[in-house]
Amino acid sequence: MLIPSLIVHGGAGDMPIAEHADYLAGCRVAFEAGWRLLERGESALNAVEAAVRSMEDNPIFDAGVGSVLNSEGEIELDAMIMDGAQLDLGAVAAVRGIANPITLARRIMEDSGHNMLVGSGARQYAARIGMRLCSQAELTVPREVARFREYQKTTVKKQQQLADGHDTVGAVAIDRFGNIAAATSTGGMAFKLPGRVGDSPLVGSGAYADNLTGGASATGHGEFIMRVLLSKTATDAVGSGMTAQEAAEHAIAVLKRRVNGKAGIIVVDQQGRVGFAHNTPHMAVAWRSPISGEVQVYLQPDAAQIQE
Amino acid sequence: MLIPSLIVHGGAGDMPIAEHADYLAGCRVAFEAGWRLLERGESALNAVEAAVRSMEDNPIFDAGVGSVLNSEGEIELDAMIMDGAQLDLGAVAAVRGIANPITLARRIMEDSGHNMLVGSGARQYAARIGMRLCSQAELTVPREVARFREYQKTTVKKQQQLADGHDTVGAVAIDRFGNIAAATSTGGMAFKLPGRVGDSPLVGSGAYADNLTGGASATGHGEFIMRVLLSKTATDAVGSGMTAQEAAEHAIAVLKRRVNGKAGIIVVDQQGRVGFAHNTPHMAVAWRSPISGEVQVYLQPDAAQIQE
Repeated sequence: MLIPSLIVHGGAGDMPIAEHADYLAGCRVAFEAGWRLLERGESALNAVEAAVRSMEDNPIFDAGVGSVLNSEGEIELDAMIMDGAQLDLGAVAAVRGIANPITLARRIMEDSGHNMLVGSGARQYAARIGMRLCSQAELTVPREVARFREYQKTTVKKQQQLADGHDTVGAVAIDRFGNIAAATSTGGMAFKLPGRVGDSPLVGSGAYADNLTGGASATGHGEFIMRVLLSKTATDAVGSGMTAQEAAEHAIAVLKRRVNGKAGIIVVDQQGRVGFAHNTPHMAVAWRSPISGEVQVYLQPDAAQIQE
Repeated sequence: MLIPSLIVHGGAGDMPIAEHADYLAGCRVAFEAGWRLLERGESALNAVEAAVRSMEDNPIFDAGVGSVLNSEGEIELDAMIMDGAQLDLGAVAAVRGIANPITLARRIMEDSGHNMLVGSGARQYAARIGMRLCSQAELTVPREVARFREYQKTTVKKQQQLADGHDTVGAVAIDRFGNIAAATSTGGMAFKLPGRVGDSPLVGSGAYADNLTGGASATGHGEFIMRVLLSKTATDAVGSGMTAQEAAEHAIAVLKRRVNGKAGIIVVDQQGRVGFAHNTPHMAVAWRSPISGEVQVYLQPDAAQIQE
């Protein structure tokens, strides 16, 4: 029996100082939601789903409730979950009116006979399996409405600055049986075109999990992350003998060198070690110290982390 | 200046003997359409787009005109194109009423600011850039209507057999400047759920191209291909020193060993060598012999290939 391990992230980007404490508190709560399950012997898959659901339900993050609006003022969500035992995966993209797309992704993996459903087909599947559909209004928070109004009345150049910030959420775990799982969920980029899909729901880009190597979940500018398959790059690095931390740093270095992208990544290796790296100003992360058993949180380099 | 190189495929699966000659003729015509451009100095990107467009326009293949119908009798198309020079890519998934999705994928890559658009958003983007939208009727051939009627009146078990056959098309090229490109296009699995996305439009799964290693395009059962990122597995193998042929065989061996999947793959390496491998009964392929300069075609192991 292994000691289980879990790490969660709440996005990487330039996060407003006023919101730092909320990011860290949200990551801590999500970590606890997943850890509780791992501690009582549940699977890594259940743990990452629970951690990500917690962040989807928390309006501070760009996932589920609180997601960014697209160029038409609509919310379209992407998510994927992967089970490293069989390399099974489920993914959903550009789906509207689903509060917990990570759970829809899991149902797609387990019950649909397919791995990925998108757009109106994904929503139709959710309805067919009895998942509650919600209105856009239920997912929309005042912060994002205000941001969208700002976007509508500004110049194209300023619009690009407003669109910055990628608060995708994710979790990676290994359970006591050595099964590794990873999950990622996002509202994507603010003011994206309708139907735009970023890295989050793409296997090997937004997440990957393989019991023989490790698991990873990425966050950042998706158009760059997917060009180097950031999560698969990280788990392959674990497979070549790197620790989780070395693999996370390696993946970000590859991203920087090959496509000059900006992102963050969390990694768990086969031995249950966790690691993370980012080349953005901030990245919100929570994990558990294997020595003290205490939950650790992180937001930026060279700064004492805010304790709520 | 390098001698350019191109290889195309018209799917891998169990192809009816009566159609073998049409598959090979279609691959040959597609090869010629791409090769003509490479010969006069055009880019690998132009060549793979032209080759794939030729197969999208040919009703024998499951791409563009002649695509399979989904469980509701609709056609939804997936495609991706990748430029190995910058690792740029464009992809489209579950789009309706577009005759040449590979060209839409290229426009997304070059003009949208995004890499991937899906569903109604992808169609909306096509309309916005002035691409001709077509009716489902224009893409639908009698063969697939008959197959769908058969599907509707049969048992679930028989339905799965009817759904077999994955005639995705693809092309990989290197031009005289050493730029590598790959493209893949498909109507997906017959009788798939609306919104289902297979490996074809997913970066690293259905295709990958990197000037520093090689290019690849995959075909087969997408739900398995994506679990091992078959195309990235092949180009990584080239990067580790394998020839295109060794890398193709390696990728199919990984697919078989890790997830027991069935597929075919074509590969071009940095030296312009081509290779392909499959573990399906048939795979339709065309390339050019570097020795004789003649177009070669292939459909099944240990059989003289049909010459039209």
